[in-house]
Amino acid sequence: MRFFFLLSGLSVNLRSYLHIKEYNMKVEIISIGDELLIGQVVNTNAEWMGRELTQQGFIIAAITTVGDRSDDIIHAIDNAFGRADILLLTGGVGPTNDDITKHTLCRYFHTALEFNDEVLQHVESVFLRRNIQLNQLTRKQAYVPVSATVIQNKVGTAPILWFDKGEKILISMPGVPFEMKTTMRDDIIPRLQSQFQPDRYLKRTYLVSGITESALATRLSGFETLLPAGFTLAYLPSFGFIRLRLSAWGEARKPEIKQLGRRLKLLLGNEYVARSEKTLEALLGEKLRKQQLTVSTAESCTGGYIAHRITSVSGASDYFEGSIVTYDNRIKEELLNVDKQTIESHGVVSREVVEKMAQNVALKLGTQCSIAVSGIMGPEGGTREKPVGTAWVCTKYADEIISVEYHVGSSREENIERTANLAILQLIRMLSVRPDAASAGNL
Amino acid sequence: MRFFFLLSGLSVNLRSYLHIKEYNMKVEIISIGDELLIGQVVNTNAEWMGRELTQQGFIIAAITTVGDRSDDIIHAIDNAFGRADILLLTGGVGPTNDDITKHTLCRYFHTALEFNDEVLQHVESVFLRRNIQLNQLTRKQAYVPVSATVIQNKVGTAPILWFDKGEKILISMPGVPFEMKTTMRDDIIPRLQSQFQPDRYLKRTYLVSGITESALATRLSGFETLLPAGFTLAYLPSFGFIRLRLSAWGEARKPEIKQLGRRLKLLLGNEYVARSEKTLEALLGEKLRKQQLTVSTAESCTGGYIAHRITSVSGASDYFEGSIVTYDNRIKEELLNVDKQTIESHGVVSREVVEKMAQNVALKLGTQCSIAVSGIMGPEGGTREKPVGTAWVCTKYADEIISVEYHVGSSREENIERTANLAILQLIRMLSVRPDAASAGNL
Repeated sequence: MRFFFLLSGLSVNLRSYLHIKEYNMKVEIISIGDELLIGQVVNTNAEWMGRELTQQGFIIAAITTVGDRSDDIIHAIDNAFGRADILLLTGGVGPTNDDITKHTLCRYFHTALEFNDEVLQHVESVFLRRNIQLNQLTRKQAYVPVSATVIQNKVGTAPILWFDKGEKILISMPGVPFEMKTTMRDDIIPRLQSQFQPDRYLKRTYLVSGITESALATRLSGFETLLPAGFTLAYLPSFGFIRLRLSAWGEARKPEIKQLGRRLKLLLGNEYVARSEKTLEALLGEKLRKQQLTVSTAESCTGGYIAHRITSVSGASDYFEGSIVTYDNRIKEELLNVDKQTIESHGVVSREVVEKMAQNVALKLGTQCSIAVSGIMGPEGGTREKPVGTAWVCTKYADEIISVEYHVGSSREENIERTANLAILQLIRMLSVRPDAASAGNL
Repeated sequence: MRFFFLLSGLSVNLRSYLHIKEYNMKVEIISIGDELLIGQVVNTNAEWMGRELTQQGFIIAAITTVGDRSDDIIHAIDNAFGRADILLLTGGVGPTNDDITKHTLCRYFHTALEFNDEVLQHVESVFLRRNIQLNQLTRKQAYVPVSATVIQNKVGTAPILWFDKGEKILISMPGVPFEMKTTMRDDIIPRLQSQFQPDRYLKRTYLVSGITESALATRLSGFETLLPAGFTLAYLPSFGFIRLRLSAWGEARKPEIKQLGRRLKLLLGNEYVARSEKTLEALLGEKLRKQQLTVSTAESCTGGYIAHRITSVSGASDYFEGSIVTYDNRIKEELLNVDKQTIESHGVVSREVVEKMAQNVALKLGTQCSIAVSGIMGPEGGTREKPVGTAWVCTKYADEIISVEYHVGSSREENIERTANLAILQLIRMLSVRPDAASAGNL
């Protein structure tokens, strides 16, 4: 039985994940940098590494963030070696922070720096490519610890250092996300895989909407109770939709996860949107492209955010024509021909207004599909009949039109995000042919 | 001498910040949750807490993230008490994860759970307000450790627990960001302040644009060399602008930081935009409101993102009228009257096209100001003359018009972000009256 708690923002049924395969290699991530401690920078490096390594079957034991101080780094390394097999350090390299990590690692591994010609040549080639003069500071990058294996940094100058400590490993990388990601993908992960061959992490992700998390948990409680050992179902709620992730470790479980996935999909019934990890806007783009359709948006309360989301997908110009953002009522009349009387008699946040907006933007921009929204995002502007969070969304596909009134929340930022998600989902659903949806409820 | 390293994405001269006032109280943040380890969720809680506490003069010693396992949590607490005075735990509370934190804290502090009537009443009132039936699971929230001081959770049901351990303190909070932030602001920070009265953290933040970080560092190297002990200058680069933060600890340094700030501002010269920590869109909104102006946007490559940024500020309807997003060339002709010949002879990414767009959107929407952009965001669409990253931005204020060609970068996401920032900055600068700008260069 999975327990669901309504008021918490996130409920993830993952607590057993560390116990599944105790013999998978454990990794600890150590992020180095004062800027992470004082909240100047969000630690997206750790999040990215956690996700990538989990996909590859490694277990993340802990993430520790410390400042640019040698003692703190050594303390963190000592601790980490107590609970993990592989330590991945990012940051504290390069001249800006006096190469604190490199010097600390020399201290920790009782080794010294030596000049490495290959690293210098590499640094020189990077500088040449960027047409920058090499200075003394950057020459210092070529000094590396004697006992480390050096991996060249293809997209920067600070070398990657790999230390073996008995059966265990410590790898130091730059904190610049692009440099870290490149070396992780191209060098570190392949080497770790060939050395440890962890079990593969299998997963199937389902996009679900139109149901609360609690109702979904109730519907799936039987399925979850009967989940075979080693399988995990995680609920990942977002604003306006939920992703369900069914996962297990080990190539051998592939047929079983497929079968379970099919059962799960049937249980999701009409609330199933797609089996995909893609963003909503990428999913919408995929459907529009496949069906050779074009789309436009008419936005009031979302202020262009839906158009931005759609165009954040590379190649969106193939199906997106444009948008008319009418923040002011007068502009709704002038640019979208929503007549004054409709606004006056129904209010600007109404079915009548969004339907006119959707129809007229599609007409003006010559698109088969369109999305129109009008709502009150707050914190001001709410009334008793139409409180903050009221949003009307109309989606149009050929001659079909669907209008829905949503009640989205209370904070402005969340309201805009949720309204945009619901609007994009509404059009995705209109474009989805789901022949099995009708019968799914009978299962 | 401040060393600047061109190839690193971030260069922050903060390494001395922990040494300034060693007697300020040290805090360690412990984030609990498997979802943080496997990269499902970014740890924005730790970033937020780090920033808020640093503002208040506390020192962040470390951030540790562990999974929902009792032994790991205890190990982290032990470690943290070794280096910090105040431990702030988030997550691992509520029924979804079996209240792992609460049970672990009972184990750690050798105490037991007892039923607390006040907590139950509070939980009941929250459920009543949301019209939800109270169930057995939620009743469990009312069991709290005997030796803890309970702080009610105003916006959720899991109580906040405060433990004293000699001179040191451990506080356990929910991981739901909104609940954590509310209790931190309303309860935890005020209590910690009155108990420890840390030195005040003084800071002045300057928004700078139109200069590279390396050129800025060179210009300010003399200023930095002569910075009195205890003062720090941090470079916080964003896409298209840099924030400079001058800071020091202690109320007594107030006159000195003011004086240094004035000198810094003069050195920034024409590259100074504002002394503000506000977002660009909030800053623009402030200027428009003060000067009683209205604005509209005509967007091609940014696809509505600038309009979204402007309308993300609460109250933007006072000065924002609307936007015309013309992704397709045909729409530029039809909705913004950019004639076909102009597009054909100059190309769609050109001064001539953005100027027409800016003028016509202002005319159509009846605004005094406008922003128009056209560019190639990639990854497709670049040519030899106009490679990916080329963007023309035109800003209009009354009869004045400024058009600038930018070369923004290489990844689509970054290009959109950077173009929007540069466009908003360009209008902010037009609206800024800076009588001292002309003479600043002479200093």
